[in-house]
Parts: sequence; structure tokens; C-alpha cells
Amino acid sequence: MPDARAQLETAITSVAKAVEGVLEKYLPVSNEAESRLVEAMRYSMFAGGKRLRPFMTVLAADLFGVPKERSLRAAAAVECIHCYSLIHDDLPTMDDDDMRRGKPTLHKAFDEATAVLAGDALQALAFEILSDEKTHPEAKIRLELVRTLAHASGMHGMVGGQMIDLTAEHASLEMGEITRLQQLKTGALIEWSAMAGASLGRASEHQQHVLLTFARDVGLAFQMADDLLDHEGAANDVGKATGKDADRGKATFVSLMGPDRARAQARALADQAAHAVAEFGEKAILLQALAHYMVERDH
Amino acid sequence: MPDARAQLETAITSVAKAVEGVLEKYLPVSNEAESRLVEAMRYSMFAGGKRLRPFMTVLAADLFGVPKERSLRAAAAVECIHCYSLIHDDLPTMDDDDMRRGKPTLHKAFDEATAVLAGDALQALAFEILSDEKTHPEAKIRLELVRTLAHASGMHGMVGGQMIDLTAEHASLEMGEITRLQQLKTGALIEWSAMAGASLGRASEHQQHVLLTFARDVGLAFQMADDLLDHEGAANDVGKATGKDADRGKATFVSLMGPDRARAQARALADQAAHAVAEFGEKAILLQALAHYMVERDH
Repeated sequence: MPDARAQLETAITSVAKAVEGVLEKYLPVSNEAESRLVEAMRYSMFAGGKRLRPFMTVLAADLFGVPKERSLRAAAAVECIHCYSLIHDDLPTMDDDDMRRGKPTLHKAFDEATAVLAGDALQALAFEILSDEKTHPEAKIRLELVRTLAHASGMHGMVGGQMIDLTAEHASLEMGEITRLQQLKTGALIEWSAMAGASLGRASEHQQHVLLTFARDVGLAFQMADDLLDHEGAANDVGKATGKDADRGKATFVSLMGPDRARAQARALADQAAHAVAEFGEKAILLQALAHYMVERDH
Repeated sequence: MPDARAQLETAITSVAKAVEGVLEKYLPVSNEAESRLVEAMRYSMFAGGKRLRPFMTVLAADLFGVPKERSLRAAAAVECIHCYSLIHDDLPTMDDDDMRRGKPTLHKAFDEATAVLAGDALQALAFEILSDEKTHPEAKIRLELVRTLAHASGMHGMVGGQMIDLTAEHASLEMGEITRLQQLKTGALIEWSAMAGASLGRASEHQQHVLLTFARDVGLAFQMADDLLDHEGAANDVGKATGKDADRGKATFVSLMGPDRARAQARALADQAAHAVAEFGEKAILLQALAHYMVERDH
């Protein structure tokens, strides 16, 4: 489906631009004494990237006819969390990465202290954006977004997953443990991205369940694709160092299943996700294309 | 007033215990794979400390008869933010402190990566606690707390202040710049602590203004007292290294005004703060005692 793919990429680019428009207003260049912090936040936030989590939020919200000015704000919030997590994960004491999206990582371009603080401030910004009444006129819905994002990004979500990733004896992790690790580390935020659209759109319980199933499958498939990229990719293709997992003796989906089975499994999950949202009919075409895109991407 | 002082210290201890009770429920010891993260959060969170910000929240809420189970939750949230900021500020790349409250700092007791993540998770926990309906039955009020805490702790509040503190040419900072730096770095969270009580208690605009004035004066006085402690204190009295400001050539209230004027100014501000809340009558006695306590404390 070359047309669907082209249509998808156009939509991704357009949503990414719109999300950046929201973020731009929160991160104006200024002459305040704290301007270096804002510069650092901007450096990481406007470094490109496909904004796939925001895109999923907007697509999910579109199913229910949510006005774009609302879904884009929830989308901007999840991107703040994602961006802060990349900044902190890249720190020398964590994954120690020098490059990200083809540019020096924030602590390389600025310094480590600034990177810690920029991440901290981006986390706060996510909650500031969500709690503003522009996100949704109903306070209950905004609160639901805040509460679920705090949970998805905290100790029993993204940060908890990163902790397990850093401390686990990876070589001895089994399939179930790897799956839980990834569901926390990357899955929780992807799930939130889809569920935010459901919250904004007052989805029925059944619809919520469908979107959650979709997001879970896509999240897992996405991680398998990521492991495959790390396993196969060349450094210049993905804009960051690759092959690091193997270097560190980390068990991954690929090391446990082998690349062929991992690829087949990722595709099966994407198909399953696409099938789950089929009941939304034509409105779900882009979501379905996204599910496949997330496992076929080459960076 | 020895009786007032004893009464205050009893009240401080009692609120600290109650706040810890709230936090204890959110940080249970577990056998989950991410338990090391929870242990780290507990290590820093339950390391003692007077919990002065939470105390201020509870006292301010008491003015309006807010049920304790609500004010203690807002109090727990601000302590999460305060605690995360201490963990990140202590990191080698920031203030590089080895001791905090007489114990090794978190990155010394665990490691730097865990310290970064524990701080990140504590920030998320603050917003998770606030957004739960137990904090206040009315969604609008919970949202107000989330929105203002995100702002007070973010790029134009606490984190912004820390950035200025790290980057400014301190030797050349003038009084107005030091004041702004401190208002962001420590003042914003102290202001939030008082204003949270006002929000929970649906204070009138006038009452909010009174509490804001109170918190601004106390916040500034508190920082001056802190500078005096650093200037004069011995390392074993305050449980952390002292005299560091001078070692680093930092301009502080003390270096700009001299210790005598700084002490007089701190006391004058505390008097002014106590005077501001006098209109609440007997209900404000503990708040007034707290204002004086925060400038007279010896650690």
C-alpha cells in the first residue's frame, strides 16, 4: 500500500509540526537568568524525531472527534515525558550515550547538570500542560490525564522499567521478565498515548479496552523492532550507537528468540493490533497503518 | 515563649509523622523487580527531616478547617518534590555533596543512576498523590494544586532557580538577582506549601494574598538563615558540609549584607510574616511561631 504509507508519513509530519507548535509556546527563547535551561530544553525537544507517541494520541482522539487543540496538548505532554526520559537515560551514569538523533546528546552539547535539570523541568512541564483548562474543559478529564501519566511515567511505569533495565542480570532474564521490563520501560507511555485519546473522547469501556489492547500489542512490537534495529542497524542509519545491547550482554527479545522469530512476532503483534481497531472502520486506517509502520521503520 | 516553642516542636513532630504515614502507603517495601528503586526512594524520603514545608501546608489548611486527611496529602506531595530536588542537587555533577542529614547522600549509598531515577520517580509521585480524589473531592481544586505545583517546581520555579544558581557568576550577583534566584530556588516551593492550604480551604482572595505575603517573607528569611548557618555552622551540627558557599566564591545574602545585617533582616522578615497572619487571630499562633522558628533554627 504505497499510498497508505505516503498518507501516513504526511500525517506524521503534520502532527509533529503541530505538537511542536504547542511546545514552542511553552519554551520561548528569553533573556531571563534561567534562559540556559530553556535553551537546553529546546535543544532536546526540537531535535527532530517522528513524535510517534503524540501521533498515537492524536489518532486515538480523532476516533472520537476530539478537537485537535485538545489532543495536541495531551500529545505535547507525553512528548515532554518521553524527551525527559531520553535526556536522563543518555547521561554518563545511565546509558552513557554521546549521540541522539544524529546530534550530540544534551549533556555533551551543554553539561551534565544542565541535562539533569532540563529533564526535571520537562517532567514538570508535562503536568503543567495537562492541567491547563485548554486541554479539556472538564476538570475530571484533565485530572484523569494527570493521574494516569504520573502513574505511567513513575516508579511502577517508565522509571521503574528503566531501573530494572539498569540493575537486572540481563543475561539471565527470561521471556516473561523481559516482557514486563519492556512493558514498564516503553510500553506504559505508549499505552498512555492511546488511552489519552480515549479519555479526551470519553470512550466507552469497550472502546477503551480495544485501544488498550491495540497499544499493548503495538508497544511490544515496537520494542522488538527496536531490538532488531540495535541488532542489525549500522550506527549512521539510526543516529545513535547500535549493537550496544549485545556488547553489554543484555538479554533482549532478539537474543532470546533470534532475529527471525522476533521479526515474525513483531509483525504478528502489529497485525493483531490492526485487527483490534478494525471495528472503528475507516476512521482507524491511520492507526492500523501506524501499527505496521512502527515495526517496519528503519530508524 | 518557651511554651509556644515546645508546643510548636510537638506539632512539627506530629505532622511529620502523619505525612510519613501517607508516604509510607505509596512506597511499600516489595519484591517487585523495581524494588531497588523503591528502596532508594525510601532511603531519602525517610531520612528524617523536620518536614517544614508539609507543616506549613497543614497549618495553612488548618486556618480554614480543612480535614487533615486532605492537607496531609498535599503536604506529602510537596515533600516528594523537595526530596527529589535534594537528591538531584546532591549529585556529583551538581553540588556534589556526600552527606545529607548525617547520612551518606543517595548516590553514595546506592549509585548515581539510581539517584537520578529515584528523583524522577518522586516527582511523578507528587502529581499522582495530588490528582487522587482523596486529596479533595472537587476536581477543580486538585487540578489547581497540580497546576501550581508543576509551575512552582519547574523551569520558572525551583528548577529554574537551581539552574541560575549553577550558572550565574555568583561573585558578581547583586542583591536583586540573589533575591530572585532564591525566590525561584527555594521560595516558590515554600509559597506553594502555604497556598496549597489556601486552595484546599477555598480561601478568599484577600486571605490568599495574606498567606502569599506570609510565605514570601518566610521563604526569604529562611534562605537568609540558611546562608547564616552555612557561614557559621560546623559540619557536625548541620549534618552536611558547610562553608561551601564561600569556598565556591558564591555571593549570598550573608556575603552581600554581612552576618549581622542578614540576621537582623531575617528576623524583621519573620516578624513581618507573623504580623501579616495576625488577622487570623488565635488560629495563626502556630504559623507565627513557625515563622520565627524558621529563622532561629540551628540546623
